[in-house]
Amino acid sequence: MSFEVVDRDLLGRIGRLRTRRGIVETPLFLPVVNPLTQPIPPRRMLEEFDCKALITNAYIIKRRLGDQPDLEVHRLLDYDGVIATDSGGYQILVYGDVEADPLEIVEFQKRIGSDIAVILDIPTGWETSRERAEWTVRETLRRAEDAIPLIAESDALWVGPVQGGNHLDLVEWSAKSMGQLPYDIYALGSPTKVMEQYLFSNLVDMVMTAKLNLPMNKPLHLFGAGHPMIFALAVAMGCDIFDSAAYALYAREDRYLTPRGTMKLDELRYLPCPCPVCRRYDAEELKGMLKFERERLLAEHNLYVCMAEVEAVKQAISEGNLWELLKARSRGHPALASAFRRLTRYQDALERWSPTHKLRGLFYFDHYDLSRPELVRHRKRMTHNYSPPLRTSILLAPAPGERPYIRSSEYRRLKEQLIDFKQIHLCFYTPPFGVVPPELSETYPLSQIEVAEPIDPVTLRWTAEETARYVKEKPYEVVILYRRSSADLDDLIEKRCREVCEALGRRLWVMETSNPYGEGALRRLREFLEDKFKEHRV
Amino acid sequence: MSFEVVDRDLLGRIGRLRTRRGIVETPLFLPVVNPLTQPIPPRRMLEEFDCKALITNAYIIKRRLGDQPDLEVHRLLDYDGVIATDSGGYQILVYGDVEADPLEIVEFQKRIGSDIAVILDIPTGWETSRERAEWTVRETLRRAEDAIPLIAESDALWVGPVQGGNHLDLVEWSAKSMGQLPYDIYALGSPTKVMEQYLFSNLVDMVMTAKLNLPMNKPLHLFGAGHPMIFALAVAMGCDIFDSAAYALYAREDRYLTPRGTMKLDELRYLPCPCPVCRRYDAEELKGMLKFERERLLAEHNLYVCMAEVEAVKQAISEGNLWELLKARSRGHPALASAFRRLTRYQDALERWSPTHKLRGLFYFDHYDLSRPELVRHRKRMTHNYSPPLRTSILLAPAPGERPYIRSSEYRRLKEQLIDFKQIHLCFYTPPFGVVPPELSETYPLSQIEVAEPIDPVTLRWTAEETARYVKEKPYEVVILYRRSSADLDDLIEKRCREVCEALGRRLWVMETSNPYGEGALRRLREFLEDKFKEHRV
Repeated sequence: MSFEVVDRDLLGRIGRLRTRRGIVETPLFLPVVNPLTQPIPPRRMLEEFDCKALITNAYIIKRRLGDQPDLEVHRLLDYDGVIATDSGGYQILVYGDVEADPLEIVEFQKRIGSDIAVILDIPTGWETSRERAEWTVRETLRRAEDAIPLIAESDALWVGPVQGGNHLDLVEWSAKSMGQLPYDIYALGSPTKVMEQYLFSNLVDMVMTAKLNLPMNKPLHLFGAGHPMIFALAVAMGCDIFDSAAYALYAREDRYLTPRGTMKLDELRYLPCPCPVCRRYDAEELKGMLKFERERLLAEHNLYVCMAEVEAVKQAISEGNLWELLKARSRGHPALASAFRRLTRYQDALERWSPTHKLRGLFYFDHYDLSRPELVRHRKRMTHNYSPPLRTSILLAPAPGERPYIRSSEYRRLKEQLIDFKQIHLCFYTPPFGVVPPELSETYPLSQIEVAEPIDPVTLRWTAEETARYVKEKPYEVVILYRRSSADLDDLIEKRCREVCEALGRRLWVMETSNPYGEGALRRLREFLEDKFKEHRV
Repeated sequence: MSFEVVDRDLLGRIGRLRTRRGIVETPLFLPVVNPLTQPIPPRRMLEEFDCKALITNAYIIKRRLGDQPDLEVHRLLDYDGVIATDSGGYQILVYGDVEADPLEIVEFQKRIGSDIAVILDIPTGWETSRERAEWTVRETLRRAEDAIPLIAESDALWVGPVQGGNHLDLVEWSAKSMGQLPYDIYALGSPTKVMEQYLFSNLVDMVMTAKLNLPMNKPLHLFGAGHPMIFALAVAMGCDIFDSAAYALYAREDRYLTPRGTMKLDELRYLPCPCPVCRRYDAEELKGMLKFERERLLAEHNLYVCMAEVEAVKQAISEGNLWELLKARSRGHPALASAFRRLTRYQDALERWSPTHKLRGLFYFDHYDLSRPELVRHRKRMTHNYSPPLRTSILLAPAPGERPYIRSSEYRRLKEQLIDFKQIHLCFYTPPFGVVPPELSETYPLSQIEVAEPIDPVTLRWTAEETARYVKEKPYEVVILYRRSSADLDDLIEKRCREVCEALGRRLWVMETSNPYGEGALRRLREFLEDKFKEHRV
C-alpha cells in the first residue's frame, strides 16, 4: 500500500505517501512549475521553501523537448524531490483537443521518470452540457482502463481523474467507476471558473460527492485549487494533494496571496505577513522595483504563505481543531462562509470519519457549530445509546457554572434536597446540548467545551428543541421544570416542554425562581415537590 | 500638536506621532525590553524587525544603574529608535509600593533622555475594592498634577495613565479628569488577570469607557496588551499604542504566539507560520535545541508575528475593513468572540467615529454584522433623513438578483407594469437592510455588499422587523406585498406587516407567486392592482 493515514480530523488526514523517491507527507501542496520558465528555481523551492514535491507539465515537455534522448524530468528541472507530472488535460480544457495520443503521454511520463503521473483525461469544465459532461466521464474512464496494462509495470504512482463537473450524479458515477480501477491516487478537477468566481459552495458539493464515492484509503488530489484561503476547506473535505500555479501566476499580475484572500499590490500600503520577503521589504519598496524582481519576490511571498498554510492545516489536524481553523478561514470572504455552511449539510459524513477521541476541548461560537462532528455524535449517542435510569420523573434544572456538573457544589446541594425523591432523575439543561444527565457530565465533549457569550438566539432555540426532544424520547411520566425567571432560554424550554407534554399526555410541573441555587429557592423546591407528589402520587 | 490622524476605521486610526527623535506611525507596538537582559538585542530589533520604538523600565534602570553619571537610555540599550520608558507602576502593582519618589522618577526619565515617559502612577489592578480603586484614581491624578511643572519644560511626550480597573464609573471619572490635564498621550492599564484569564469582554468595557471619555485627538496607550490575537480588537477600540513583554516572556516558557492564540511548543508538530524562523527550522529542530537558543528563536518568531499583525491591522484600516479583520480574529477563541459581541453594544460610538466614505464593499457574514458602522448609519439615515416620494401606496417586491437594483432588468420590467399606477412607490425588500427604495439603491452600502448564503435566521427575522418598521414610520395608506411563495423571509415579512397595518389601520394587499419576475406573474400583478384599486379607490 502506497498510502498510510497517520492522523485524522473531519475528512482531512495526515498521511504518508510512498513514492519511488521516498515518502512524502500529505496534505501535500504541489507548486506548479513551468518546465520552460520559473520565477523560483526548483532547487531553491526544495532548499529554501521546503517544497518536497512539485508538479510540472509532461505535455509541454513532450512538445518542446520530446525529441531529446535520455530526457529525465528531475535533471531537466534540477530538482531532487518528488515530481508529479500532469498530462495535458488542462490544455485540453483551455485549447480544445491536444495533439497527443493518450497512451503515448502515459509512456512519455514513464520515460522521463515522473514519480506521480496522470493519464490524459478529458476535463469536464464548468457549465458543460450534460451530454458533453457524460462523454468526458466515459472517455476518461475508457482511457483509464486502456492505460492499466501500461501503468501496471510502472513504479510511478498513477492518478485516475474523476470527471462530471457540476453534474453531481455524473461525479458520483465517475468516482464509483474510477474507484474500481487500480489507481494509486484519485483526482478531481476544480474548474478555473469555480476558483475565479469564488463558487466554493459548488466546489463543496463536487468534492464531497467525489470523496464519498471513492475509496477512503487512497489519496485524493484536487487539481488547480491552490489558493491558501481554501486549503483548510479542501483538506477538511478529504483532499490530500492540491496543486496550483497561483503563487506564480498571481505574482505576475502583482497579486499578493494571504490565507484571508487576495490583495492587489497597489492597494497594499503595508505588508500584513511575517514571511522573509515581507519582513525584508515594505510595500513601497516592492511597488518601486523592476517588474521581474517584484514578480520573483511576490512569487516567493506567495509560496511562503502557501507552505505555511499547509503547516497550519496539518497542525490543526494534529490538534484536532481543523473545524476551528476552517471556521476562522471562512471569515475571509462571504463565499467561503457560504461554502462552510454548505459543508454542514454533510455533517453525517464528517461525523462518520472524524476521530472519536480528542485531546482538546472544543470551541463553540455559534449555531453553525452544531454541525461539528463532536456535537453530531453526542446527539446520536443520546438518542440511540443512552437509557436514563428507571425513574418516573425528570427534574430539569439550569446547568451549574462549574463543569463537570457532577462535581459542582450546585449539583451536591440540589441532590441533597432531592434525597427523599427516589422517583426523580435529576438532569441539567444547557446550550448547546439540551439535556445533560449528571452521570454523563464527565464524558467528552460535555465538560470540554468553551462557549462564546452571549449565546446566539438560534442556539437558544435549538437548545429548547433538544430539551423537548429528550423529554419526548425518554419515558418519563412527569416533567419537572425548575427554571430561572426572566431567561429567554428558560421561556423557550417551558414553551416547548409544555407542547410535548400536552401532546403526549404527560404531567409538567414548573417552578420558577430568580436564583435557583440559593438556599431559599432549594428549600422551596423541596416543599413544592412534596406538595406535588402528595397531590398526584406518581 | 504631536499627534496627527491620517486614516481611520471604527475607532482605530493610523496616526503620526511626533517625538523628539522623529515621527513614528501608530498603531505602534512597543516591545518591552528589559534594560539588563534581552533575548533580541535592541539594535537587531530596529534593523531586522523594523521596530521603530520600544519600551523599557526607568525604575529598574534607576535602581540598578542610577548612580552612573551621563546615563543615556539610547546609549545604554544601543538603540537609535524611539524609546518609551515606564516608571515602575507595574512593579507597584506586583510588589506593592516601590522605593521611589514620583517626581524623582519623572526627573530621572528626563535625565536619561526618554522620548516617551510615564509618570509614576498607581495601577488599580483587578478585583480591587472600590475604596482602594478610588484611591488609585485620586492618587494617580494628584501625581499627574504635581508632575505638570516638571514635564512642561521637557521635550519628551508624557503619558497620563487612567485608572479604575473594573469599576467603570471610576474609569469614566479618571478618564475625564486626566483628559483635562495637558498630557500628550493617555494610557490605560490592562491588568495581568484580564490577559491571563481571557477576560476580553471586561477589557472592552474598560477600554471603551476610557476612550469615550478621553480627548479623541490624543493617542491612547493600552499597557501590557501585547498578544497579537487582541491587536485588532485593541485598535478597533481606539488604542494607538500597546506594549508587551509577551514575545519574550512567552518564549521563555516555550510558548508560540499566533494571531489566533498561543500554542505550546511541545504541542506543535508543525510550525504554522511563514516567518523566517519557522521557514528555517521545523518543530522537532526547535524542540531539540538548547534552551537559550530555542528561547531566542521563539522570541524572534513571536516578535515577527507581532510586527506582522500590526501591519495587518494598519492595512485593514487603510482598506476600511478592520471590522472584517476583527471578526476573523475573533474566531481564535470564544473569549475573543464574546469580546467582539460585547463591542457591538458600542455600535453607536463606532458609527460616530468611523469614516463615512469607503472605497470597498463590505462583507456580511451573520447578524452580528448588523452592528457594523455602515449598517448602523444606513438605518439612521433611513429613519431620519429619508422621505419617500408622496405616494399613497408602497409596493414591496423581492430584491432583484442584480445590483444596483435600479439598473436591473427586473426593476425595468416591474416598473413597466406599474406605469399606470402613479400612486405606487415601488420598493424592494432584502436582507440585511429591510426596505430599499430603488432611487437609493446606488448609494453606499446598498449595492456594495456581499452576503454569505444561506442567510442566517436571525438576519431574516431582523429584515422582516426592519421592513415592518419602515412601513410603520412612513405615511403610506396602502401596503402592497408582492411576495414569493414558500420563502421564510417572505412569511416573516407578511406576518409583521400584517401586524403593523392592523395596528395602524392601514390596508395590506398581498399577492403571492413562485416566480415574481416571470412575465405571467408580472401580468397578474397588474391585473391584481387594477382590481384592487378599482375596488378601493385609494
